[in-house]
Amino acid sequence: MDILEIIESKKNKRALSKEQINYWIEEYCKGNIKDYQSSALLMAIRLNGMEKREIFNLTEAMMNSGDIIDLSPIDGVKCDKHSTGGVGDKTSLALCPMVAALGIKVAKMSGRGLGFTGGTLDKLESIPGFSILLSPEKFVQSVNSIGMSIIGQSDNLVLADKKLYALRDVTGTVDSIPLIASSIMSKKLAAGCNCILLDVKYGSGAFMRTKADAEELAKVMVEIGCHFKRDVRAEITSMNQPLGLAVGNILEVQEAVNTLLGKGPKDFTELCLSSGATMLLQAKLYDDREKARKDLLETITSGKAYEIFLKFVENQGGDIRYIKDFSLFPKAEYKHEIKADRSGYLTAFDTMGVGLLSMHLGAGRETKEDVIDYDAGIILNKKLGDQVSKGDVLMTLYTDRCNVEDKVSSAKNLVTISDEMILEPKVVEEVISYDDKEKKFIIEEE
Amino acid sequence: MDILEIIESKKNKRALSKEQINYWIEEYCKGNIKDYQSSALLMAIRLNGMEKREIFNLTEAMMNSGDIIDLSPIDGVKCDKHSTGGVGDKTSLALCPMVAALGIKVAKMSGRGLGFTGGTLDKLESIPGFSILLSPEKFVQSVNSIGMSIIGQSDNLVLADKKLYALRDVTGTVDSIPLIASSIMSKKLAAGCNCILLDVKYGSGAFMRTKADAEELAKVMVEIGCHFKRDVRAEITSMNQPLGLAVGNILEVQEAVNTLLGKGPKDFTELCLSSGATMLLQAKLYDDREKARKDLLETITSGKAYEIFLKFVENQGGDIRYIKDFSLFPKAEYKHEIKADRSGYLTAFDTMGVGLLSMHLGAGRETKEDVIDYDAGIILNKKLGDQVSKGDVLMTLYTDRCNVEDKVSSAKNLVTISDEMILEPKVVEEVISYDDKEKKFIIEEE
Repeated sequence: MDILEIIESKKNKRALSKEQINYWIEEYCKGNIKDYQSSALLMAIRLNGMEKREIFNLTEAMMNSGDIIDLSPIDGVKCDKHSTGGVGDKTSLALCPMVAALGIKVAKMSGRGLGFTGGTLDKLESIPGFSILLSPEKFVQSVNSIGMSIIGQSDNLVLADKKLYALRDVTGTVDSIPLIASSIMSKKLAAGCNCILLDVKYGSGAFMRTKADAEELAKVMVEIGCHFKRDVRAEITSMNQPLGLAVGNILEVQEAVNTLLGKGPKDFTELCLSSGATMLLQAKLYDDREKARKDLLETITSGKAYEIFLKFVENQGGDIRYIKDFSLFPKAEYKHEIKADRSGYLTAFDTMGVGLLSMHLGAGRETKEDVIDYDAGIILNKKLGDQVSKGDVLMTLYTDRCNVEDKVSSAKNLVTISDEMILEPKVVEEVISYDDKEKKFIIEEE
Repeated sequence: MDILEIIESKKNKRALSKEQINYWIEEYCKGNIKDYQSSALLMAIRLNGMEKREIFNLTEAMMNSGDIIDLSPIDGVKCDKHSTGGVGDKTSLALCPMVAALGIKVAKMSGRGLGFTGGTLDKLESIPGFSILLSPEKFVQSVNSIGMSIIGQSDNLVLADKKLYALRDVTGTVDSIPLIASSIMSKKLAAGCNCILLDVKYGSGAFMRTKADAEELAKVMVEIGCHFKRDVRAEITSMNQPLGLAVGNILEVQEAVNTLLGKGPKDFTELCLSSGATMLLQAKLYDDREKARKDLLETITSGKAYEIFLKFVENQGGDIRYIKDFSLFPKAEYKHEIKADRSGYLTAFDTMGVGLLSMHLGAGRETKEDVIDYDAGIILNKKLGDQVSKGDVLMTLYTDRCNVEDKVSSAKNLVTISDEMILEPKVVEEVISYDDKEKKFIIEEE
């Protein structure tokens, strides 16, 4: 077998065999297949697509390219949750303690932010002392005793994805559903959970621009999960505005904690309740969505979820005095209020633009080497559907940088104010699962 | 501008602008665009194609990536001839002296053979003493005084093509008409001739497998020529059998010389007459094809073409005693006769297989570093349409290698013998030119 024959097959729209896919991934990881050959194949896959069978085999080959985590020492149902990435997405921080309070074991590996999206690890590290590095033994022990732990992805997990993702990023081959689905799912499968909830986002602040694209990606990933005997479901959520009000690391930690205290933004609280209910159904701890939602809300009002969050932070070295008293957190040096220059209704966000602005303010990374200012970010004072009067503050920017005047002055272009009222958008639009017996997708509209 | 934006355009089936193409070629030559980025773009071009305008711009950008040869110090009409590569194609060796004898100035740069195809330079170098390296001054002076010279392509001609061709070869992106056409035509245009005759081959021993593909490639190249104000015509010829009877360097030199002495194989002689007539029409030295053919035949019977060949060889250091007495040439150590195991008619050749066999016998290169045995090769004793009796010799193999028994024993599989008679195939099937006033192709069927 050689790589040219594999490239020829895909170039000529033929399906790759399991052996061909394994050969590619293995030899590419060993360095015997060159970057310029993999990039030609990636482009052929991007343009000619892959059949289901090929996507399953690619996912498996990638999964087997590194360590497979064994979570069997953890008692109970291990659930994972993954978001395809958005702006202001601090869901794991609030959702995980809530479902842990109801008996789900959350053994989660997260990533860092890049470009317009933030990363859960960066948000956690904005809590002084917090460490995302635990030994495998400590990780298992933490989940068993507290109910949850969130750590950095092991360097040896899905080695092929590290190489391939870096290559796709510089060769215009990111936007391929087979490649995105196998990249995400190989990591989720290698991470060892039985149940996985995927949050597939679409809109102006997501990689998938349309709902149809998000649904297509979601279905492929749900079917991959089913093929590998995991309960994988996907919720389709809109990124046509940032999630919640806070964007930026410390700001988002505070918002997540406030949500656990019952003072969270409506859309973010709703996402946690809806996602949590789906996870509880997946874990078979509940068979009724409404009852699950009610009990999830109860984890907030009773303070149980907040207690778990404190234990989780403390267990990983974080200083919980900051969680109990936000005034201890450092404050950004500069604050800029962006005001409406007309009255009307807020009808659209350039969400990716908000993410990029947050990055430029210091809250994110333009390249992997950039250092984050944890106190930088944005607080939205208005959301979609809100009525706005001329002069109202639309958003408040926090930064330690003095050279971002041009970004600040163009910030008002990130929102559209119109005369016509729009409805507040839905948070979770639908939940997709797969019925393996009937061989069909089940789509629940919320 | 950046390469990702260019890849995105082509990936999404948009035409590339002249600026985008220039940027790609220039920055790739400088090393600022990486191989893995160019290979992704090459695959996108292979799969999504290019418009005429893009092909013209790519040809121009490639042409400008190295030296442009100035042939103005050569008096008269400078004609070039290029074959897309085949098996047993020694046309330049006989054709060039024939047209030179009728006043065309042949200032030709040739290439080496690789894989199943031979190269004119290798054939010439099989004449002891022959040098393919002449200074630009000596080259011009030789063409002016003798009427012809054939040298190696300058290292600085079309630098982009050297890098791109090597990359295409290892990334499955060779078989793209826009890329093949721009690669060939950038070199032909940079080499400076006014008139160019292209021999576009198709069939079992050519890169283009079907006549339709060959016609498509030919039309694109003819239109590129017209765009750049050159008279470019293309003949479509079949490579469903090797050209002539000889395959291998010394064997082909001898066949070319025999042809100049009027003792050449019928198909090869016919190709020289037909190609020569087209070149004389292009050069406007003749306006009647039949008259041109007649005079070309006369250059053989009069010995004029042979005299020019001798002068040409002598001028470039070759020992003409070998040309005058073939018995001086070294002989291959081993000779194997391949015999027919049934009677019938020879109805098909695996021409590429014949080329590869010749390579394995020592007459060609598997990799650029391989050394050629000039005396190795194949003589065909039967051609398409010939009647064959069981036990007849089909071909005779010459080699200095003792470890090619398996290649020898499978050689009989390279021909098909059937009961049904077939007609001897046409040599030149059609000649394609472009009428720039009427904006249409002219196709002359022979």
